[in-house]
Amino acid sequence: MPVATDPLLAPLADRRPTVERVARLPAGFAAAGATAGIKASGTPDLALIVASNGPVPAAAITTPNRFAAAPVRLSRANLSETGGSAATAGRARAVIATSGSANAATGPAGDADQVEIGEAVATAIGCSPAEVLHLSTGVIGTRLPVDRVRATVARVAGAGLAATDAALEAAAVALRTTDTTTKVATASVDAPAAGGGTVTVTVSGIAKGVGMIHPRMATMLSVLLTDATADPRTLRELLAGAAATTWNQLSVDGDTSTNDTVVLLASGMAGAADAADDGAARAALSGAIEAVARDLARQQAADGEGATALITCQVSGATDDADARGIARAIVASQLVKAAVHGRDPNWGRVAGAAGNAVVADGAILEAAGMTAADAAARTARPASVDPARMRIAIAGHLVYDGATGGPVPGDKAVVREAMGGDEVLIRVDVGLADGTGEAFGCDLTEGYVRENSEYTT
Amino acid sequence: MPVATDPLLAPLADRRPTVERVARLPAGFAAAGATAGIKASGTPDLALIVASNGPVPAAAITTPNRFAAAPVRLSRANLSETGGSAATAGRARAVIATSGSANAATGPAGDADQVEIGEAVATAIGCSPAEVLHLSTGVIGTRLPVDRVRATVARVAGAGLAATDAALEAAAVALRTTDTTTKVATASVDAPAAGGGTVTVTVSGIAKGVGMIHPRMATMLSVLLTDATADPRTLRELLAGAAATTWNQLSVDGDTSTNDTVVLLASGMAGAADAADDGAARAALSGAIEAVARDLARQQAADGEGATALITCQVSGATDDADARGIARAIVASQLVKAAVHGRDPNWGRVAGAAGNAVVADGAILEAAGMTAADAAARTARPASVDPARMRIAIAGHLVYDGATGGPVPGDKAVVREAMGGDEVLIRVDVGLADGTGEAFGCDLTEGYVRENSEYTT
Repeated sequence: MPVATDPLLAPLADRRPTVERVARLPAGFAAAGATAGIKASGTPDLALIVASNGPVPAAAITTPNRFAAAPVRLSRANLSETGGSAATAGRARAVIATSGSANAATGPAGDADQVEIGEAVATAIGCSPAEVLHLSTGVIGTRLPVDRVRATVARVAGAGLAATDAALEAAAVALRTTDTTTKVATASVDAPAAGGGTVTVTVSGIAKGVGMIHPRMATMLSVLLTDATADPRTLRELLAGAAATTWNQLSVDGDTSTNDTVVLLASGMAGAADAADDGAARAALSGAIEAVARDLARQQAADGEGATALITCQVSGATDDADARGIARAIVASQLVKAAVHGRDPNWGRVAGAAGNAVVADGAILEAAGMTAADAAARTARPASVDPARMRIAIAGHLVYDGATGGPVPGDKAVVREAMGGDEVLIRVDVGLADGTGEAFGCDLTEGYVRENSEYTT
Repeated sequence: MPVATDPLLAPLADRRPTVERVARLPAGFAAAGATAGIKASGTPDLALIVASNGPVPAAAITTPNRFAAAPVRLSRANLSETGGSAATAGRARAVIATSGSANAATGPAGDADQVEIGEAVATAIGCSPAEVLHLSTGVIGTRLPVDRVRATVARVAGAGLAATDAALEAAAVALRTTDTTTKVATASVDAPAAGGGTVTVTVSGIAKGVGMIHPRMATMLSVLLTDATADPRTLRELLAGAAATTWNQLSVDGDTSTNDTVVLLASGMAGAADAADDGAARAALSGAIEAVARDLARQQAADGEGATALITCQVSGATDDADARGIARAIVASQLVKAAVHGRDPNWGRVAGAAGNAVVADGAILEAAGMTAADAAARTARPASVDPARMRIAIAGHLVYDGATGGPVPGDKAVVREAMGGDEVLIRVDVGLADGTGEAFGCDLTEGYVRENSEYTT
């Protein structure tokens, strides 16, 4: 007879498709990474991804920050132009991403720069400027070196683009700013074929972190490519749904960037049934997108600026999934929890305190998924339901708080501290009220973070 | 002819009464600070304040955290019992404050401890246990040493209480945890006397910081005493109003404690007209309370854990005052702004980015002021109105961003950096939309904060 184990002491079951941390370029795309000289470091800083056979359905989630950067606003306008009324879904032929300068808060001149870059891409690959999506990351308030970007685009579009996994990896390298790792993830799943039978559909994503990341959606840069078949509207729904449980649950430092953007392009080259009509095709694609998004979010959390530990908080027993996500997010975003994890201190009081502050605010996701500003303005934030007498908390597999038995659980703190020693610390919370589950990802707060961010521009 | 100076380059005008950083015990109260042995350090850790002539009108604002500590919940219950339906206003005879143990998340045993302490106070000074207000601060999840607290209360109530300024100062010393300074502030103002003519009314406050402080109201411990005359309801209104523009605008680390409590007691001994009926008396008292609260909030921000600089953000030109407060709060709470100030880096892009994320969420204040949980749950959070093309930003008296003239303002960064060198950094933002003003207070994020908070309990 198996020993009964408290589920609180283990991670939540994960039924998502398996993810490999590799770049695997889906059919129908070509990619390149190059050095345009935007970064002073002389490392790659320009990524170009092209849909080989013409424009394909595309969706985006962009930052809710009212100082949204020029590339963000141009991408929204372009998707709106190619998709009719939807500013976050349409058709795209190319994605241009630059790193080293955010082109945010740069006024009309910065907007003009980005338009010029879009025209350069359109000319180089032979498409309309409205079919180009723009991503940029770096220091706010600095201009892009347009001449160098244009020259690099012309060079790359000529001979640099390749339909290889290595080319997608090179694009991922070029996204990086203060990232210490290149972030790639791929899931391949079975899906119904368009003409009957089964095909393999691939979703492969690249991403960069690692500062200015917070649960108010659209939390960094990421490009997801798939050979599945779907219309823009379906892509937007699947991307927003995946973001709600992954990127929206990621917090590095509580600041939502002016530039955060996730885009998803679908080439349809796998020959799968259309996810807009076929429930099984939609489910397969949805699972793969969410799995890739989740893995990229975890890579981003683990590589948070200065971080020494990935913090995963998983919540069960909440009133509903939104409550569970709100509680998990509040815990990983708590500066005091983050500092405690840095010291590998099982300070569960800070976990309880953060849970007691948790707010359910999924409205931002709806906004990112296309809700109007007016509707977003009317969104409500409600406290998550928490009862100290029912909550249980486990840290690194050790029960430390049990509301039903009086609260603090006696035990050897040194044992828990030892269990927190790895590069991932799991905080499990059971709210004890109902069946809602959710998770969130963060990292510890370190002296290194402070050093890195107090010496950034000067 | 005077030289026209851009108002953006100077602090907002302050029309509040003058505040002295001294403890000045108003007539009708006695106070004491003592050492009960709650803290391992052996420093003072118990404060007792008594209304000398019987119970007086009292109001409180307490944390919205759902893990509210035993002392918080007992204070609410007591005010409810002595004030009828209002859980945050009633009558009180004594305030007991302990530091070193929060008595939060301690289950039914912790509640019983706090009840015992209340009974000890009631017995020692001869009042009902319902007339005792409780404050506590320290580590979450640890029990109070009730025997030692009881013995100390008996000792202090016997011979330790004194109606002197020094006794109030001693109470302030006993509130401290990781505070490096003792926080006291006093304002004396003219008010109409009850029988005609004018009297001087005094509001004197003591407070402690300095971690777990954030703009979701009730942000630390503070006791305000006055010799003015007012009923509980008026006290609650004035306290909530003052907190909205002061403590609610204070952020040290974004975490809202389980224990935060502000209480206000009015002895009526100055012989002033009743602030409940007399508009001039109300205005005088309101101004003095707000001035004292603001000064204590600034002391708390300046003494934030590990801080080297007080950050004051003042916003003008907002759609309304609530928007201005939301924007100011978002800026001082931004981890990236805090890190930039630590490096004395005029990184205005982070200020703009934080402003773009600002949310107006004064609902929490209403909750703290007595709104029901259901109403609070229905409160809305809306984005603050910001237009990058109209906003202007000045740091330490230097214009660094002007949306109307294209954004970034060219200039010598070294000059701004030099101007940021003091122990207070002023960030001025003009939103350029209307006439709303507001301010917020914070501190820089330092390696010292991280060290202090990653090594706290173990």
